[in-house]
Parts: sequence; structure tokens; C-alpha cells
Amino acid sequence: MGPVVAVVGGGQLARMMAEPAGALQIRLQALVEADDGATAQVVPRSVVGRADDAAAVSEISSGADVLTFEHEHVPQQVLQQLLDSGVNVQPGPGALKHAQDKIVMRQRLSELGVPCPRWRAATTVDGIAAAGSELGWPVVAKTPVGGYDGKGVAVLDSAQDAATVADWLDHPRGEVLLEEKVDFARELAVLIARRPSGQTAVWPVVETVQEGGVCSEVLAPAPGLPPHVADDAADVARTIAEGLDVTGVLAVEMFEARDGILLVNELAMRPHNSGHVTIDAAVTSQFEQHLRAVLDLPLGCPEMTAEVAVMANVLGSQLPDPSSAYPEVMRTYPEAKVHLYGKSVRPGRKLGHVTVTGADAAQARKRAQDAARMLRGE
Amino acid sequence: MGPVVAVVGGGQLARMMAEPAGALQIRLQALVEADDGATAQVVPRSVVGRADDAAAVSEISSGADVLTFEHEHVPQQVLQQLLDSGVNVQPGPGALKHAQDKIVMRQRLSELGVPCPRWRAATTVDGIAAAGSELGWPVVAKTPVGGYDGKGVAVLDSAQDAATVADWLDHPRGEVLLEEKVDFARELAVLIARRPSGQTAVWPVVETVQEGGVCSEVLAPAPGLPPHVADDAADVARTIAEGLDVTGVLAVEMFEARDGILLVNELAMRPHNSGHVTIDAAVTSQFEQHLRAVLDLPLGCPEMTAEVAVMANVLGSQLPDPSSAYPEVMRTYPEAKVHLYGKSVRPGRKLGHVTVTGADAAQARKRAQDAARMLRGE
Repeated sequence: MGPVVAVVGGGQLARMMAEPAGALQIRLQALVEADDGATAQVVPRSVVGRADDAAAVSEISSGADVLTFEHEHVPQQVLQQLLDSGVNVQPGPGALKHAQDKIVMRQRLSELGVPCPRWRAATTVDGIAAAGSELGWPVVAKTPVGGYDGKGVAVLDSAQDAATVADWLDHPRGEVLLEEKVDFARELAVLIARRPSGQTAVWPVVETVQEGGVCSEVLAPAPGLPPHVADDAADVARTIAEGLDVTGVLAVEMFEARDGILLVNELAMRPHNSGHVTIDAAVTSQFEQHLRAVLDLPLGCPEMTAEVAVMANVLGSQLPDPSSAYPEVMRTYPEAKVHLYGKSVRPGRKLGHVTVTGADAAQARKRAQDAARMLRGE
Repeated sequence: MGPVVAVVGGGQLARMMAEPAGALQIRLQALVEADDGATAQVVPRSVVGRADDAAAVSEISSGADVLTFEHEHVPQQVLQQLLDSGVNVQPGPGALKHAQDKIVMRQRLSELGVPCPRWRAATTVDGIAAAGSELGWPVVAKTPVGGYDGKGVAVLDSAQDAATVADWLDHPRGEVLLEEKVDFARELAVLIARRPSGQTAVWPVVETVQEGGVCSEVLAPAPGLPPHVADDAADVARTIAEGLDVTGVLAVEMFEARDGILLVNELAMRPHNSGHVTIDAAVTSQFEQHLRAVLDLPLGCPEMTAEVAVMANVLGSQLPDPSSAYPEVMRTYPEAKVHLYGKSVRPGRKLGHVTVTGADAAQARKRAQDAARMLRGE
């Protein structure tokens, strides 16, 4: 009774899909890393297995209307096998390869005319040095596969630094991506959902604040963003979603350069940290929308329900259990929406987030930050 | 890691506790009627058993910080045993008895000076006839225990009708409650949450619309309610919550008489149908607040996040699976928040609800009604 969605991944993103799934009578079948992890704690039908294990992915797909993902780590070969055996995979491997390989992504975005930082691919240390000279030092080096949250990213200041990322060339992929280091004013993200049958819905553009390559805060909507720039950002997201045939939620992370130009930084084809604010501050959350989109159901209204909303991540904690701060946090911030993911504490780990809505952006930001700080035990 | 809440009941109310429980890293342990019922579908730690089985209730209470309920059907004797064995029961048996027995409730509310319809208790058919004559026909007869959603309630037009409820006297309870039939303008409900340590929080008063004794719609806030009447309603709720030592969510259903006087009709000591609108239209939903309250955590802000919100119940359906209407409902009402409870279809059964928020009360009401009608296959 009701749709069945198989999801690969047992972290906070699959966990947060469970809330709208419950409301919409959608049954989740999750392939999780551990039977007591973030997702397994809240999804009765969880199976422990690896995302690159074709048999395990096939098992959770059994009886499901669609297979989707909370990360990009299912190999193309496994995805193709699933497609061949008749599984409805959303987003499909043809879209996902652009989230799995940053060089493939840059090539395709360049073909589509999407504004990106200037970039080169290099296969040798000398090639890295040459690309850096061509783009102008410093440059940003990225491993094309497997990087996330600042990992697999390095800033190279000169040709002498090329050797510091030489071991990335040892990966079977054999290439390193070099990008100009954009002198940006701030970072923005725009989230869009797209159905297999084509409908799209775009949430308001947000500003993301990063610390050490990890998202720490999201301000929604992006403060002071001129409407025409917001429209440009939405157009870019639509161009990418359609050009790459993305289904489900697509997060497009962008630099807003000092001259007002937008340049696409990263893509994620799944719910994304920059969209957590939609849970408590949009008519339709990114998690509900992702489920609707991959099931090819009509999309929900993406409008905000508050004038402003700020999300602050809880990254690591001095407390063995951040929920031990609930009495203090809830007393001090009765309006705060606290989310913890059921994860054990490790330094810098994404343990949860707090969203505060209101009419005063500065106040909402301060209160969200302070509440997150309390949960970090600071 | 995080609080653990045991909940008795496997229906939609316990199911809807799972959403905020997941967000707040609260683990639910549910005692359910069936292993594929509304709650068991979304709560991994569900145990099948009866609410009057002391061993089963004790089992789910094991390791929990608190035991709470989605209904009032755990016998006093079982509750007392749990208390004696050291289980933290919220609300406690001393409060719950007022939700289990309408005559006990009327006696206590009268003692507290809470405005109620005039009432009598009768133990014989002659007694019913005498009470009716005293109160003035017609009167409303209620079985003091076990009635819900219009069941166990009858309107008696004259002394001749007294015999029609004679079999209610055969119940071990042996009494029937008679109440004056209030000529009300409309029905209101006010929900309050209260912590064991005393803090309370009241949501805005709502108007409830009943069809055949079952809630069909909720309008939030109650349209055109004078602020002083809303304040009176909140005061009544606070008086009851404190006077009866209720913890968790208390729903107070009231008549607004034609002369503007409020009279208390029914009480429920748990999340309630009249509060479903808080899921999508209040900073803190009744389900989150109930969990916070029974855990004695500081209460969340009960303010609305929308100007108006209307909830329409999905009562029965012509469709074998109401979710088969999603394509049509979601296309037509992209702003509607659809909730289905994972229950099989039976005539008149509460299968789900739809909430629509907005600025125009009439439009929100029409759209919520129409969306619910589509899910009913009409």
C-alpha cells in the first residue's frame, strides 16, 4: 500500500527522508552501512551492505517502485546492471556520472555553456604545473572522484606545489582537475528538483558559509541577492538539471564572484546540506521533494514559509551525547528546530543542525549559531 | 544515545510521533496492535501486544526514560503496577483516569469550577429518565468509559428514550452520564502541553467541524474568535492541565454557546486530531511537544507559522489505496501537505489528513476539503 522507495545509504540524508516518507505513506527500504546507524534507527526495512555490492543494491530494490541514493558511490557498472535488470534508477547512471567525476562534470557543463571557473585536467605532475601556469597561480586541485567536504581538494600556490598532489594521480582515474581560484564574494547554492517526465521546481537561492571546506551555515534566502541574479542562478540550475537529465534533487553550489558573475563550483544529485533549511522553512522540504521527484509525482510548492531562515550545522561536539544539551538549548531557544542524526561523536563530524526562522536575519543567524554551539558543548 | 520514549499504541498518533522523534534523536519503543500497522511501519522497535497486558507494557518500558500513550486504554491497575516498579509514566494514572471515565472527569471539572454542560450520572433507566427531566429534554447520554468518535454517545429526546441506552448500564461501570444538549454556535478545541515540572504552552484555539460525531475539519486559528474568548479558552485549558496534573499534550474540546460562553465537552490526554494542523502550521507540532513534555524537556514555541491553516480529514475512501490519487492531488494542490497513515481502507476510517496554509481562510478551507475528497476517491 503506497509507493516503495529503495535508498542507498545509511547516513543523515536517508534518515531525513524517513520523515516525509512516513507522512506520505511511502515505504523506505534502505541499504545501510550499519544496523544501528543514522538511517537504520528510524527505517524498519534496513539491510546492511555495501553500496558497491550489486547483490545488496539489487536486494533493496526488490519490490520498490524506484531506487535512489543519498550519495554518489554506487559504481556505474552496478547501476547499469540494475537498469538492465529492469530497476527504475533515479537519478540514472548517465546523470550520476557527472556527480561521480568532477572532470566529466566540467566537460559537460562547459559544453552546455554553463559558467564555471576556468579549468584543466592533468595526468602528470608536469601537466599539473603547466595547467597551473596557464590558469594562473594559485589554483585549486581536486581529485575527480571520491572527494567530499573539503577532502580531495588542495590549493596549489606555485608549480613547486604540483608534486604535493602527485599521489592523486595514482588513483585508477589517473587525472587531477585544476581550477582557477575564484576570488568570490560569497558562496551560493540553488536546489532544484526534477521529475523524469520533466517538471522542475526551484527553491529560493541560499547563501552557504563554509569552514575548512565544510558547510557550517546556510542563510535563506541569500541576503541581498538581486532578483536578476537569483533568476540567473535558477536558470543555471535548470540548464544543468535538464542538460544532464538529473532527476530528484540537484544541488548546485556556486561562487558569486566580486563582479556579480555566478560560477558553478560543485554538483550533488541528492538532498544536500544546503537544503536542510527547507525542512522547517519551506512548504515542501528537499527530502519530500526528492521522494516525489524520483517517484515521478507532481512536485510540491518550494516557497519559503518564513521571511528568513538560518541553518547552523553541529560539527563535532565536546559532549559525549549532544542531546544532553537539550534542556539548556530548548529553554534558551524555544523557537529553534533542533535535528540530531543519531550519530556517535567524532571531531568535526556532522552530528546535526539547527534551524531558526524569523523576520530578522541577523538575530536568526545569531540564535541558530548559539544553539548549535550549545549542542557542541561550547 | 538520546532519550528513549515508550509509547502504547500502534495507530496514526504514535506513527506521527516518529517524525519529530527522528529529528530529535529520540528513540521510540512502541506497543502496537499489529506488526504491519500504522506505527510498526515506521518505528523499528515495535512490539506486538495488548494495552491491558501488564507484561507487554512493561516490556516496552524497559530502558525507556518515560512511558506515554496514544490512547487512554491502559487500565489503572496496569498503570499502577508500572509506577510501583519504577517506570516514569506520563501522564500518570491520576490524570489519565479523567480521560478514561467521563463521570470522574465531570466531577473533577465541576470541583475546579470549570464551565461544563449541566450533567447528572444515573445507574438505572428510571434514573436516566429522571435526570433527563431535571436537565430538560433532549439530553445527551454518554457511556462513561470506552466511547470515542461519536461511539457511546446518544441523544435522548424524552423519558421514553431512556431504555434505548439501558445496555450501557450492563457495563461493569454501571453508570450513564447525562448532559444537557448545548445549543452551541460551534465547537472549539484548545491544546496545551504541560511538563511534570510545571511549564505549559498553549497553541492558538482552533475551530473543529464534526460530521456524525467525528472530526472532519479544523480551522486554525478559530475564525473571528474574540481575543478575550481565546484567552478564556487558554485559561480553562491551563486550569484543567494543572488541576488534573496532566502531563504531555491535553486536548480540551469545547462548545462555544450562542451566548459566547465556553463549555468543556471532552478531554484527551495525548496528541489529538484537532492538533494535526500544528504539524505543518506551528513552530512546534503537538507530536514534538508531547515528546518534549513527557520527557520534561523545555517546551517549544507553539506559535503558528502561517496566517491561517485548515486541516481536512480523509475519512474512508472509494479507492483501495488513497495514495493512488497522489498524481492528481499533488498536481492540483502543490501547496497541500498530505498525510496518510498506512491504514487499510474501511468505511469512515481515519486514513489521513490534508493541511493547507495561506492567508485566505475560505480558499485554504476549500482546497483542503477538495484535496481530501480526491484522496477519498470522490
